[in-house]
Amino acid sequence: MPSASCARLQALRALVAKERLDGLIIPHSDEFLGEYTPACAERLAWLTGFTGSAGSAVVLANEAAVFSDGRYTTQLDQQVDGACWQRLHSLRTPPATWLAETAEPGSRIGYDPRIMSQADLRPFAALDGVTLVATPCNLIDSLWTDRPALPDGPAFIHPLNHAGESSASKRTRIALTLREAGQDAAVLSDSASIAWLLNIRGSDIPCTPVVLAFAIIHADATTDLFIAPGKIPPAVRDWLGPDIRTHDPAEMEQVLASLSGRTVGVDPASNAVWFGQCLERHGAMVRETPDPCLLPKACKNDTEQAGMRTAHLRDGIALCRFLHWLDTDGHNATELEAASRLDAFRAEGAGYVEQSFPAISGAGPNGAIIHYRVTGQSDRRLEDNEVYLIDSGGQYPEGTTDVTRTVWTGPGVPPDDLKKVFTRVLKGNIRLGQARFPIGTAGFALDALARYALWQAGLDYDHGTGHGVGSFLSVHEGPARIAKSPNTVALQSGMVLSNEPGFYKPGAYGIRLETLLLVRPVHPPAAQADHNADSGRQFLEFETLTLAPFDRRLIDLAVLGPEDTTLLDSYHARILQLIGPHLPPGAQKWLAGACLPLNMA
Amino acid sequence: MPSASCARLQALRALVAKERLDGLIIPHSDEFLGEYTPACAERLAWLTGFTGSAGSAVVLANEAAVFSDGRYTTQLDQQVDGACWQRLHSLRTPPATWLAETAEPGSRIGYDPRIMSQADLRPFAALDGVTLVATPCNLIDSLWTDRPALPDGPAFIHPLNHAGESSASKRTRIALTLREAGQDAAVLSDSASIAWLLNIRGSDIPCTPVVLAFAIIHADATTDLFIAPGKIPPAVRDWLGPDIRTHDPAEMEQVLASLSGRTVGVDPASNAVWFGQCLERHGAMVRETPDPCLLPKACKNDTEQAGMRTAHLRDGIALCRFLHWLDTDGHNATELEAASRLDAFRAEGAGYVEQSFPAISGAGPNGAIIHYRVTGQSDRRLEDNEVYLIDSGGQYPEGTTDVTRTVWTGPGVPPDDLKKVFTRVLKGNIRLGQARFPIGTAGFALDALARYALWQAGLDYDHGTGHGVGSFLSVHEGPARIAKSPNTVALQSGMVLSNEPGFYKPGAYGIRLETLLLVRPVHPPAAQADHNADSGRQFLEFETLTLAPFDRRLIDLAVLGPEDTTLLDSYHARILQLIGPHLPPGAQKWLAGACLPLNMA
Repeated sequence: MPSASCARLQALRALVAKERLDGLIIPHSDEFLGEYTPACAERLAWLTGFTGSAGSAVVLANEAAVFSDGRYTTQLDQQVDGACWQRLHSLRTPPATWLAETAEPGSRIGYDPRIMSQADLRPFAALDGVTLVATPCNLIDSLWTDRPALPDGPAFIHPLNHAGESSASKRTRIALTLREAGQDAAVLSDSASIAWLLNIRGSDIPCTPVVLAFAIIHADATTDLFIAPGKIPPAVRDWLGPDIRTHDPAEMEQVLASLSGRTVGVDPASNAVWFGQCLERHGAMVRETPDPCLLPKACKNDTEQAGMRTAHLRDGIALCRFLHWLDTDGHNATELEAASRLDAFRAEGAGYVEQSFPAISGAGPNGAIIHYRVTGQSDRRLEDNEVYLIDSGGQYPEGTTDVTRTVWTGPGVPPDDLKKVFTRVLKGNIRLGQARFPIGTAGFALDALARYALWQAGLDYDHGTGHGVGSFLSVHEGPARIAKSPNTVALQSGMVLSNEPGFYKPGAYGIRLETLLLVRPVHPPAAQADHNADSGRQFLEFETLTLAPFDRRLIDLAVLGPEDTTLLDSYHARILQLIGPHLPPGAQKWLAGACLPLNMA
Repeated sequence: MPSASCARLQALRALVAKERLDGLIIPHSDEFLGEYTPACAERLAWLTGFTGSAGSAVVLANEAAVFSDGRYTTQLDQQVDGACWQRLHSLRTPPATWLAETAEPGSRIGYDPRIMSQADLRPFAALDGVTLVATPCNLIDSLWTDRPALPDGPAFIHPLNHAGESSASKRTRIALTLREAGQDAAVLSDSASIAWLLNIRGSDIPCTPVVLAFAIIHADATTDLFIAPGKIPPAVRDWLGPDIRTHDPAEMEQVLASLSGRTVGVDPASNAVWFGQCLERHGAMVRETPDPCLLPKACKNDTEQAGMRTAHLRDGIALCRFLHWLDTDGHNATELEAASRLDAFRAEGAGYVEQSFPAISGAGPNGAIIHYRVTGQSDRRLEDNEVYLIDSGGQYPEGTTDVTRTVWTGPGVPPDDLKKVFTRVLKGNIRLGQARFPIGTAGFALDALARYALWQAGLDYDHGTGHGVGSFLSVHEGPARIAKSPNTVALQSGMVLSNEPGFYKPGAYGIRLETLLLVRPVHPPAAQADHNADSGRQFLEFETLTLAPFDRRLIDLAVLGPEDTTLLDSYHARILQLIGPHLPPGAQKWLAGACLPLNMA
């Protein structure tokens, strides 16, 4: 008998044929096009069995394929039934390429315009001989009888002492940018943008404290919010105030229709194509333009910056307690035990809400899997004398954290080669963290600073160096980043970005050292050294938010060099000063040792 | 009575009206769209009096303006008669913007399609209410009665012992890329591309040893070359061989017409729009694509690389003799005297042809003018105890050089602030020169390495860090560069790029330290250090071609740091070893002192 997924595929094919279509595109994304999706939106997993965070499927009458990237090759083979599905690498065989090669010329291929952005659809739209057809409803949903309901958790208030700016003030700023751009309104699908704009939070998805909703911000600074009525308690309704009109999501089309004749901004990346199609159907002018909240949200105000420091102090306490535990009682714990122990330490701190992403807890060879997520099957004991990588973060009402440390389990001393490469990664982290740069500099210009020491030894890492981090929002936030690819968004004061160079030796170990950086003006301006400085230029620099020591046992002072050793010592001294007083005696003693100056040794 | 330029403007306006046009665009560029133009193409100068290397003019019935960038503001005011011309900054008031604001709606604006590229024309083409009209001939030429003739210097052979690859082999390679791209032919206007492809050189323009010509390379590897018959001596005609058909330039349209129905590549940046218009008029399919010679020309073969080393050895000898002269007998020479003295030293070396660009010889405040060109009026004596910047280069049959050194005239010691900033510039030059980077890395990713030490002190420079350099061709060569702007062309083995960080203190001094770098694979591969290196990755590094010491009097060892001091000492030791034996005793002794290890001090 066929597997559940093959049976579901057959049922779907019947439905596709009934709709007079020759095929269907099934993305992993949902209506909100976010990084995480609620259980009710795991349509790809329901159909194919594949539960990875990135993937898609294309179904034709006689062929069907599931696609994901290199991170998930093994998982794809384990979870997806090869009897009825081809399992393909999405970079080597992009779905659109596969469709072009496999579909009959003239095929009508269906897609759900509510869950795909124009960016998602573009490669398919570019194909000759294939006609894309928007389906009136989601075909999976009509088969998925026991589909979970949308999360019904209530929205809650993100108060001014954390937000630092009222929603009215934010909406006034955004409305001004709309008017300056000649727009009457803009559609928002990004739950983080809506949470920032309206100063509300929620718990609809793991790791990111948002409510799933849509909104339309108007040039008069009023806003239409589309959300299930039950998710807005009276206190939140009062908090939103009269300029924010709440609607049942079912009223969306009607409100969009009322924008007939108006110019409305739609984001090709974050809005589903349905919005643009619906607006045009009702006679609105659609202007393709980025989500107007993206940049202002990324530039944290003084209150949010202070909150980030508070969150990182709490997080640093938990992390130092964890590192102490690891060094003393943590021997031979499993990866899962270690991760939950760290979560427990965080939970003991004030205000901790949840982890900001599923912790990456990788011992030995598991550390070399860049997006490793420990499961019951993969769980592994931390052996003696190996490398352990722990990448984790927390959500606090004051801010969001993301930190990676790589430690030596001991009790022996690490091999010299390991110390050399660890130190090159550390050197990259320090060089980038120390950088000053003129206003207008984008992340791509700084990326090599984190790689230089590795490059000199013929080493590199296959991921970006830094991503934006939200303020009690998503741990992955645009629009700026630090990476090889030339994203030209300039780094601006108030942005928070990660600084996470690494090195991965497949089958052996992984090293990643991650701190969060706050972009700030160089201050005191006097710091703009030699009075050669032409007063005209304004420079930015980074403030290191993360407070956790680097494992001194893995540092090769000859490779680090005197200048960076001094910088590291002052960072460790700062950690001891800020974190030490908050630790229990044992951990405090341990931290004092971990933060001893290295160039005394 | 009106100035000559105002009279010429009146005559031109009459002609424009006679053509039933409302205005005319006059660029500085000529048919070949190169960096330098022959005297016969200085139409902008003839009309307006402005002789700068970058500029344009727009003439309307009642208004006329000349545009140039910040480098030429003063010169513009001095040379152009304000009585009949507006004199405008081309960045603050782009010509197209001025035209849009000044011309009557519906104006018909003429341009000569033979001397403007699509890139030049784009901003004008984008204007509403202005119709661009290609003029049948150049209107200036019909007024410029005493216009000089085209240069008639003969082409000469660039032999295999310098070129390293036969024209037949090059044409076969290019033809293959054309066929792979589905093209039947490509039009070439870039004299450097034609010189490279056909292994010929010439002397039509200063500083760049090329003949001005057009060519069409076909997918069968044959080539049509359009050049005045008198410029091809019999020996060169034999050298070109039967697969290269020479034509009088007047036959161009007829040959283009024969491509009816074919797909022909035209470069929007280097080909005048006339070519595309002519091809379409005759029924050819025009494919916009970069000049197919650009990339292969930039990647020097082994012979060209060896030639570059030879050229830099000769150039280093001349430069070291010059620096010795400067230090001993050069006191109180003028900028012009110094520049011609350096040229004389070059001329005493074997094979020297000419300078590769007009030397920038700037003493004191003149050194702060980035594109300073010393003239009789500006000429200035080198005073005691000031900074002198000399940026110059030579053309040798083996290769092209470009080098900048900045020295202290003495006899006193330089101020500490000056030493600090000089050393930061030097540190940038060393950091970039030492960089290793994975294959696929583009110049924008490395630019910050040259700026980091300056940025840390709140300093920067407003020019790119590195430009490509040709092989006995143009000293400014694409397609790769090292700069802030994200030019995504990857650096490739065999490319030669400059490494020229600087710092400029207006009214006081300029510092620039320039060496040429050859891109090469990291070798021995063993150099890919720690055996952590995953064999998969391939890395590139730079070989420093330039051989001339940096002024030790201006170096602050505390700022330079031990690691870079060691690197500098080994560079100086290499210079002494390679250049020393070729110097007269006095200069040899001087060089030995200039190359003494610094970390002995």
